Amino acid sequence: MPVETSAPVRRDPKAIEAAVGALAARFGNRLVTSQAVRQQHGNTVTWIENQPPDAVVFPQSTEDVQEIVRICAAHRVPIIPFGTGTSLEGHVNAPQGGVSIDVRDMNQVLAVHAEDLDCVIQPGITRKALNEYLRDQGVFFPIDPGADASLGGMAATRCSGTNAVRYGTMKDNVLSLKVVMANGELMTTARRAKKSSAGYDLTRMMVGSEGTLGVITELTLKLSGIPEAISGGTCPFPSVEACCNATIMTIQSGIPVARIELLDALQVRAVNLYSKLALRETPMLFLEFHGTEGSVAEQSERFGEIAEEFGGGPFEWTVRPEERTKLWEARHNAAFSTFTLRPGSSMIPTDVCVPISRLAECVTETQRDIAESDLIAPIVGHVGDGNFHLTLLVDMQNPDEIKVAKAFNERLVERALAMDGTCTGEHGVGQGKMKYLLAEHGAPALEAMRAIKRALDPQGIMNPGKIFALS
Amino acid sequence: MPVETSAPVRRDPKAIEAAVGALAARFGNRLVTSQAVRQQHGNTVTWIENQPPDAVVFPQSTEDVQEIVRICAAHRVPIIPFGTGTSLEGHVNAPQGGVSIDVRDMNQVLAVHAEDLDCVIQPGITRKALNEYLRDQGVFFPIDPGADASLGGMAATRCSGTNAVRYGTMKDNVLSLKVVMANGELMTTARRAKKSSAGYDLTRMMVGSEGTLGVITELTLKLSGIPEAISGGTCPFPSVEACCNATIMTIQSGIPVARIELLDALQVRAVNLYSKLALRETPMLFLEFHGTEGSVAEQSERFGEIAEEFGGGPFEWTVRPEERTKLWEARHNAAFSTFTLRPGSSMIPTDVCVPISRLAECVTETQRDIAESDLIAPIVGHVGDGNFHLTLLVDMQNPDEIKVAKAFNERLVERALAMDGTCTGEHGVGQGKMKYLLAEHGAPALEAMRAIKRALDPQGIMNPGKIFALS
Repeated sequence: MPVETSAPVRRDPKAIEAAVGALAARFGNRLVTSQAVRQQHGNTVTWIENQPPDAVVFPQSTEDVQEIVRICAAHRVPIIPFGTGTSLEGHVNAPQGGVSIDVRDMNQVLAVHAEDLDCVIQPGITRKALNEYLRDQGVFFPIDPGADASLGGMAATRCSGTNAVRYGTMKDNVLSLKVVMANGELMTTARRAKKSSAGYDLTRMMVGSEGTLGVITELTLKLSGIPEAISGGTCPFPSVEACCNATIMTIQSGIPVARIELLDALQVRAVNLYSKLALRETPMLFLEFHGTEGSVAEQSERFGEIAEEFGGGPFEWTVRPEERTKLWEARHNAAFSTFTLRPGSSMIPTDVCVPISRLAECVTETQRDIAESDLIAPIVGHVGDGNFHLTLLVDMQNPDEIKVAKAFNERLVERALAMDGTCTGEHGVGQGKMKYLLAEHGAPALEAMRAIKRALDPQGIMNPGKIFALS
Repeated sequence: MPVETSAPVRRDPKAIEAAVGALAARFGNRLVTSQAVRQQHGNTVTWIENQPPDAVVFPQSTEDVQEIVRICAAHRVPIIPFGTGTSLEGHVNAPQGGVSIDVRDMNQVLAVHAEDLDCVIQPGITRKALNEYLRDQGVFFPIDPGADASLGGMAATRCSGTNAVRYGTMKDNVLSLKVVMANGELMTTARRAKKSSAGYDLTRMMVGSEGTLGVITELTLKLSGIPEAISGGTCPFPSVEACCNATIMTIQSGIPVARIELLDALQVRAVNLYSKLALRETPMLFLEFHGTEGSVAEQSERFGEIAEEFGGGPFEWTVRPEERTKLWEARHNAAFSTFTLRPGSSMIPTDVCVPISRLAECVTETQRDIAESDLIAPIVGHVGDGNFHLTLLVDMQNPDEIKVAKAFNERLVERALAMDGTCTGEHGVGQGKMKYLLAEHGAPALEAMRAIKRALDPQGIMNPGKIFALS
C-alpha cells in the first residue's frame, strides 16, 4: 500500500446506516445499495482494488444534491461524486465507505449561447453527447480525453486530451461552475463574462479538486467554432527524438497545430493490429490543423518541411473527413489497441508531463527502462504539451509482475520530477499518485492545499482519502 | 466611504515601531520611512485617498522577502507588496498602515527556455523591459496592460490587455509562482511542465489574489513566438453596435484575431488630438492579426468583408511595422489622450466585462447614462472579450461632480452584473470594487474566499483591507 494512500478505515457504521436510511426515505428507488451497483461505483481503470461505497444515489437536480450533502454532512458520512467512472487513479473509490452521488440523470444542456461561444450544462452529460447536441450550431467543445467521460468528471480531474496543445485543458475551458459545498450551500464560482479579475479564482480552484471540495452540479463551458477546414495526417520519423524536435520547431514557428500526437513504434504496431491499418512501424506523429482551407494547406506544407529537416516524412495529409476520422478513431482507440500486444493482460495506464525540451530524453530513457524491466508498455504522447502516456500490460494474477510494474512507475515519476515535470499531466491524483505530491510540490504547497481543504470541508466528508492525506 | 472599504484603522503603533526598528536594523538604508517615499507608495491611479504605509523596504532576493515577512508576522504588522504602483483600485494603499515591500530591485530575468516557450523572472521587471530582453530570441510575452507594469503586480491583479482575445490573461500565461506565504515559508505553486493535474491549482489561486495571500517573488511565464507576420489597421463603423456585431462574427468565424479594440467616437477624437492622427470621429475598431504572410493577409481580407456586412469600412490595413506601431502607440496612449478633452481634470479609470452578446447594449446604455449625467467619459474596449473601459474626467475639487461620477460608476457595475458580467474585467478589486463582490459572487463564494484567506493568512497581515472585509 503506497504511503499516502488512505487506508480503508470506514466511518462509523451507525452513522452510515442513519444517513442511508434518511436518503432512502427521501429518494426511494433512486438510492441503491445492491452489491453490484456499489461495486460498479467503487473502482476506476486502475490497479487500486475495488472499494465500494455503502450506497449510490441518483440525483436529478442541484437541489437533490444539496439535500444529499446536507443529510451526509449531518451524519459525517463521506460523499463521492461519480460521473462515468472512467478516471484512472482511483478517484471514485470509497476507501472510507460513504455515499456515491452518480450524476448520470443530470445530463441536460441548459443553454447554448452561440454568440458568446459558451454553453451551460449539467455535469452528467458526456463529451460526445454534448458535441452531438452542439453540432448543428457550428460550435464544439474541444477537450477529448480517451473515454467518453462526463463533463463534471472532466472538470473535477482537470483533464485534457489531444486538442489541448491548441485549445487548452479543462482549466482553460470552464467559465464558471455551480458547486454544492460541504455544508450543502450552493456556490457559483464566476459570472458568464469571458474574463474577470474580481477576487480569487474559485473556478480554477474547483477544476482539478477531484470532488474533495464540493460536488459540481452545473458548468458553463467555453466553446469553439467548428473550423471551416481541417487537415490531418501521419508522419513517420527515424526516432522519438526526431518526433520531439520536429514538434518543438513546429510550435516555435507559430504553426497553430490543433493536434500533434506521438506514437512509439510499439504503439503503432498495436494500432495497426487493432484498427487494421498499415502504418510504418516506427515512431510517428499524428497531426491535425484547423483553419481556413488556405491556412490548413499552408500549415500542413510547412509542417512537412519541418519534418524533413529532422529526417522524417513523408507527411501524408488530407482534408477528406472520412480519412481523417479513420485516423483519429485509431488514435482514440490506441489505449484499447494495446490489448492486442498481450491478449488476456490487464491495462494499467499512467501519464507524466515534462517541459517539452526534456521530452525526447524522458521518453527515450523510459523506453530503455521498459526494455530493461521486461515490460510491455507502448507510449502515446500529447507531445505539443510534453505529456505522454504509457499503457503497462500486466498479468494482474502475477504479484512479481505487479511489483516490477509499480517499481517502474515510481522511476517514471521520479524521472519526470527530476526534469521539472509533473507526476500526472492529465489523469489527476486520485489515490494512485498521492504519494508523489510532496516530492512534486514541496511541503508549503501541500500544506496550503490541506489548509484550503480544511477551511472548505472542515468535517472532511468530501471524497476523503484522495489527493493528499489530511493527518 | 463605500460599505466594504476598510476604514483606515491602524494597527498597534508600538508593534509597527518594533517591526520597523527590526527591519531598519536588518536592511539599513533599504528601509525608508521618509514621508515622500511613503506617500508615493500609498496610492494608485484612483479616487481613493492616499493611505501611506509606515515604511517602505526594498528587498533584493526571495530570502530578503522571507525575512521581512517573518519580522512583520512576529509583530502582526500589515505587509503590502508593491510593483510599479500603476494599479487602479487602491491595491497598494495601506489603510491599516504597515510595511510596503517594493520589489523594484528584484528585476532580473533568471532563465529563458526558448524551446519550452517559457522564462523565469523576478517580480519587479516590467513588461516592456522583459520584452526588450526577449526580443533577440524570437519570443515575447503578450500581456500588455496600459501601464508598463511589473510582472509581479500583473500576476497579482490578474491583468490582461489588448492581446487577451488571442493570448489570454495572466491566468493563462503564468506557469508557476514562488510565493512567500504569511508565515515566511516559500511556496512553489507548480512545476515548469506546461500542464498538470496534480492537486489544487495554487498558481491560479495566487494569480488575482492581489497580495492578500502572499508575496510573489518569482514567476515562470509562458512565452509566445514572435509572429512571422503582423497586419493591423483601423475600421470605422456607423455605430458601437455595428462594431460589436462585426467582432462577434469575426470570432465566430474562427479568425484568430490578435487584437480587436473598440474606441467610441469621443475616444477617437481624444486620440486624434493627442497623437496627431486624422481618424474619422466615429466608433472604430483597431485590429491586429498574427500569422504567416499569407494568413495575415487572408485574415485581414476576411475581416474587411465582415465589416462591410455590418456597414463598416473601409478596413485600412498594413503589414508595415512603422505604421502599425504608430497606431498601437496611439491606442496605448488612449488613456492619457483623454486629458485633451478636459485639460486640468483628473482621470478616473474603471472597467467592466459582460458576455459579448450583451456588449453593444451595455456600451450603448452606458453612453446614454454618460450623456444624461453630464459626464465626459470616453470608452475603449477589448471587445473580443466583452471588456470595456471608461475614463471619467472629473474635477476632483468639486464634490458634486465626484458624487455624480460615483453614482454613475455604481450604475455601470449594476448594469454589467445584470447582464451576467463582472464588476471588473482586468483592473482587480483593490478597495475600489470591494462593495460589489457580494452582488457579483453571492454569499457562498465570498465566504469561500474569506475561508481561504483565513486559512492561509490567519493573522490577516497580507495586504489587509483589500478584495473583501474579513469581519
